Amino acid sequence: MVSQNSTSQQSVGVVTPQFLQFDEPLTLSSGQILPSYTLAVETYGRLNAQRSNAVLVCHALNASHHAAGVSATDEKDIGWWDNMVGPGKPLDTNIFFVICINNLGSCFGSTGPASIDPATGKPWGAAFPVVTVEDWVSAQTRVADHFGIARFAAVMGGSLGGMQALSWAIDLPERIAHCVVIASTTSLSAQNIAFNEVARRAIISDPDFHGGNYYEYDTVPARGLSVARMVGHITYLSDDDMAEKFGRTQRNPAEDGRFRFGYDVEFEVESYLRYQGEKFSRYFDANTYLLITRALDYFDPGGRHGGDLTEALRPAQAEFLTVSFTTDWRFPPERSRELVKALLKNGQQVTYAEIDAPHGHDAFLLDDPRYHAVVRAYYQRIAASLNLESAELVQDAA
Amino acid sequence: MVSQNSTSQQSVGVVTPQFLQFDEPLTLSSGQILPSYTLAVETYGRLNAQRSNAVLVCHALNASHHAAGVSATDEKDIGWWDNMVGPGKPLDTNIFFVICINNLGSCFGSTGPASIDPATGKPWGAAFPVVTVEDWVSAQTRVADHFGIARFAAVMGGSLGGMQALSWAIDLPERIAHCVVIASTTSLSAQNIAFNEVARRAIISDPDFHGGNYYEYDTVPARGLSVARMVGHITYLSDDDMAEKFGRTQRNPAEDGRFRFGYDVEFEVESYLRYQGEKFSRYFDANTYLLITRALDYFDPGGRHGGDLTEALRPAQAEFLTVSFTTDWRFPPERSRELVKALLKNGQQVTYAEIDAPHGHDAFLLDDPRYHAVVRAYYQRIAASLNLESAELVQDAA
Repeated sequence: MVSQNSTSQQSVGVVTPQFLQFDEPLTLSSGQILPSYTLAVETYGRLNAQRSNAVLVCHALNASHHAAGVSATDEKDIGWWDNMVGPGKPLDTNIFFVICINNLGSCFGSTGPASIDPATGKPWGAAFPVVTVEDWVSAQTRVADHFGIARFAAVMGGSLGGMQALSWAIDLPERIAHCVVIASTTSLSAQNIAFNEVARRAIISDPDFHGGNYYEYDTVPARGLSVARMVGHITYLSDDDMAEKFGRTQRNPAEDGRFRFGYDVEFEVESYLRYQGEKFSRYFDANTYLLITRALDYFDPGGRHGGDLTEALRPAQAEFLTVSFTTDWRFPPERSRELVKALLKNGQQVTYAEIDAPHGHDAFLLDDPRYHAVVRAYYQRIAASLNLESAELVQDAA
Repeated sequence: MVSQNSTSQQSVGVVTPQFLQFDEPLTLSSGQILPSYTLAVETYGRLNAQRSNAVLVCHALNASHHAAGVSATDEKDIGWWDNMVGPGKPLDTNIFFVICINNLGSCFGSTGPASIDPATGKPWGAAFPVVTVEDWVSAQTRVADHFGIARFAAVMGGSLGGMQALSWAIDLPERIAHCVVIASTTSLSAQNIAFNEVARRAIISDPDFHGGNYYEYDTVPARGLSVARMVGHITYLSDDDMAEKFGRTQRNPAEDGRFRFGYDVEFEVESYLRYQGEKFSRYFDANTYLLITRALDYFDPGGRHGGDLTEALRPAQAEFLTVSFTTDWRFPPERSRELVKALLKNGQQVTYAEIDAPHGHDAFLLDDPRYHAVVRAYYQRIAASLNLESAELVQDAA
């Protein structure tokens, strides 16, 4: 392999997921016990001999283990954080070994409500246990064990993924050197919960939901899931971003440019949202949507310590990078600053970047140069502090 | 009647609506013609001999003609703007004669989709024409004519009601002396339209909607309408207000204070929203909800002049009072400032108050002393400029 210029960014290429099966029962926060489970996993880069260069990337609500590269089964399916993870990218897979795991309860190959319950031979449906962010982390530790990783160089995530990173830092302080929390929060606000509840009501009140057991009826609550996705989508974009992208631009106006005076699409923004909703309802499992929004609602490490976030964070040994975006009104900078303040109160190491970006919550997925420069610099620092070398350099030397 | 101290605030008392029937066809913005229509109307105070003291109050999405006082048929039914309208209140019915009209297409006694179409003998349903803010104003002019009011002392409204006031000022400049626009905007943003579209999709995709003709099936799309109301309700409250009112307070926690790990109500905010949604779905007509959100979407006087709001406002002869609220994220202060700037460009008279209030969009309905003081002072100025006297003073002199 020819050495690449370290500033050129490349794709990790074609990726094939692994499906790891865990047969030891997992006790969940609810007290329920999951007898066994599968997790879908992708990895990028190479684990070094010391197993010290592993980074766990945690996904948000609707994403999967497919964080980077091109799916082996669908060349159009590019990973959701492909601009962040790859050779020469901010999280440089020439240096780091990156793991991404589809969350337990999700619908992309990990065990979830659509999976067959071995006890009944039928899909779990409504009987699938409600899991928490902490449960995801418990499940993920077995993946770390599988790869023989005693301690991650970093655990990183955006939005709900950031909550998982935070949970790793608190619950497994010795297994994570750095915690990268992007566009996230330490607990949902009442407004956040309210939007989740609207989404859930839309799904649950859809007659095709059948109390969560729609698989048996050979249907899906597509209407409810579509509405749920539409309302979610609005919260991912900033008001300004929507104004810039769609404004009041009409779609299919009458010949004289006037409105059609009906409830079909009149504006571009309606067309966009309907499309997003319908597309989502074809590939995402409604029970998973319920489950993940509930995990978001429940997450509140401060709440577990009588509302004292500082106390909750005290066990963490990791160094933190926290990033927020000015126009993110789902998890605004103020929520990240709460985390930063609590860490500082504990005398813990934290780097905080508040990025002035117009794209709302979704900014964490986009290719913003200042944002990516911050993350790149932070990973270079991690690499230096852990004496990690680029795989290319190792190969060149060999 | 004994003279009251002018600073004491009283209720207008028990109110009985009038139902005014108009048999002259009304041509709508869509080109459709409504052969006849009824409008439900309440009035408070007394019209003076010169008919110069009339104020038209315009209602917002879900409200009615019952703006003040106690309903004659339900003593618990207090008018939606009772804190604003009454003897000694900011809009003082000792001085002004106040009219409030249920909008055409609404569901509280005015002709709308649930009314019987005389041509078919069945409810209009989906066949009821889509109306605009301008159509409401056209319909309202006949109420003014009915009372012999050539020129309103003021037309006033909050939110969608403010759009109607603005439309009066632009389309009927000689019939309105003052225009009071509160917590409103000159056009919806893409985000505003997006939330409306979510609400409409929730209603239309409810199987009980039956293409808008649910009356014939003896059902209502209660699930969809409930979701629509929930999402609307979130946009009426500020993030801070929801945090203050509900925070992350649990509802019905398990005995050990923990969560119940399911999709029933876990948080107060869920309980509140469900209650609001269900209550609304029992009294509001789903077709009216579609119709009014569409009227909101369409309103755009600037758009009718190639995007030039200043040009659109040029015909207005009224003096303006514009009020916005700092935490209103539905129609933020910025949107009111656009109106103020356009008026100033035209050299038109405008008073602008930006009220620092925590209650989001709903602040316009609440009893904020600074807000009410501004409105009170403005109406006192109107009274002085039009040489209006308190009915009490007239009576005392008699």
